[in-house]
Amino acid sequence: MQRYFISTPSTEGTIQLTPDTCHHLIDVMRAQVGTQFELVVNHQNVYLAELVDANRGTAKLLETIPNEVELPLKVTLACGLPKTKEKPEMIVQKATELGAHQIIFFEAQRSVSHWTNGKEVKKLARLQKIANAAAEQAHRIVQPRVTYVKKLEDVFGQQDFDIRLVAWEESAKQGETKALVKNLQKAQAGQELLAIFGPEGGLTQQEIDQLATYQVEPVGLGPRILRTETAPLYLMSAISYQLELFK
Amino acid sequence: MQRYFISTPSTEGTIQLTPDTCHHLIDVMRAQVGTQFELVVNHQNVYLAELVDANRGTAKLLETIPNEVELPLKVTLACGLPKTKEKPEMIVQKATELGAHQIIFFEAQRSVSHWTNGKEVKKLARLQKIANAAAEQAHRIVQPRVTYVKKLEDVFGQQDFDIRLVAWEESAKQGETKALVKNLQKAQAGQELLAIFGPEGGLTQQEIDQLATYQVEPVGLGPRILRTETAPLYLMSAISYQLELFK
Repeated sequence: MQRYFISTPSTEGTIQLTPDTCHHLIDVMRAQVGTQFELVVNHQNVYLAELVDANRGTAKLLETIPNEVELPLKVTLACGLPKTKEKPEMIVQKATELGAHQIIFFEAQRSVSHWTNGKEVKKLARLQKIANAAAEQAHRIVQPRVTYVKKLEDVFGQQDFDIRLVAWEESAKQGETKALVKNLQKAQAGQELLAIFGPEGGLTQQEIDQLATYQVEPVGLGPRILRTETAPLYLMSAISYQLELFK
Repeated sequence: MQRYFISTPSTEGTIQLTPDTCHHLIDVMRAQVGTQFELVVNHQNVYLAELVDANRGTAKLLETIPNEVELPLKVTLACGLPKTKEKPEMIVQKATELGAHQIIFFEAQRSVSHWTNGKEVKKLARLQKIANAAAEQAHRIVQPRVTYVKKLEDVFGQQDFDIRLVAWEESAKQGETKALVKNLQKAQAGQELLAIFGPEGGLTQQEIDQLATYQVEPVGLGPRILRTETAPLYLMSAISYQLELFK
């Protein structure tokens, strides 16, 4: 069943759908009066909804749907800006499917690409749209927020994190295997986890040292060298495996 | 350091590199006599090698390099043929990075795409090239074999598997969370694991029933709906987490 998101102060009476939702539901999916779909209200509750008026784009909520699809941890991925246009898009789409709560791109020392002169506004709008669509398809309640910060330290400017990790190739090379497991085993439901990833070429020793001052712990993601867009997907899968399947 | 693959009966004296390797090493990477690189010989051992003659494309092996980058399990992914050209490519590239040993595409009942009239030859050649390049970049010893079979049952025609899993959405919907963990916990180094994935729209009940006759167990991959190209990457990451990090 199709799933859409809406922010609305009330869940009583008829609900005005957004123009984007109307377009997709009515023009693309050819919904008619009485067609049922899922509506996530205020990123909190999921309702079974029914189209009431196709011209006005109004719907009514029929009943709540039980929903436990969000990861127990709120995971923020902070990714060094990759070189190509496709890689941030893949990270955002796949990390959303895998349950990420927020995705931050930052300019790492080895980032070849730069989002300057307001370019980030357009880039972020497109990435946010990809995140929203992926959240709908994955039947999630949360649409992850996609943001951009100029500097690595700005990742820490806006909120606090309970668990702070950085994926580091050297860590894996030195045979470190236990740090990720240790951190995920002690994680508690509701905690905020931050995981930082380098761009192509990885983070520099200077960046790792800087992160240590923010109590960020290096973790290895196994013995194979993962590309910059693959490492976040490994981490998201490992978090789900440990906290949703293993428990 | 650049890594290349070679099959050669002898590791003594000078070694003739393949034309592809010569082109990449000498023309693209501008290697000169004395330039060092890594050479994986017969998918078994890794050597530090040195270019001896740039015109003839010959090299000598200097020393073996210790290498433990392969997953303890030999993992075969069997994927229902996805709709777009990009998805098999993404599956092959990312699954290779994450340690897959073999990737089989098969025509599932809900596969929209069909590889007919010899189309599979060209498709497989391209996918094998992607696997080989990804194996080099991930510094692996094994280049996963990419194959195609017409029918689901043909997956079982060529070899035996110790552990047989199928990723099934309904399994996750019914709240099943333990089957994957249970299977990975009992897995032994050296075993062959087969994991089957549906195309867009998933496998049919009939296919799941058919797989049951081959002792294939349905497993859930968490509560979110994963796209056909994301589910194999979740599984590969979970295998690595359980067998390489958790242990």
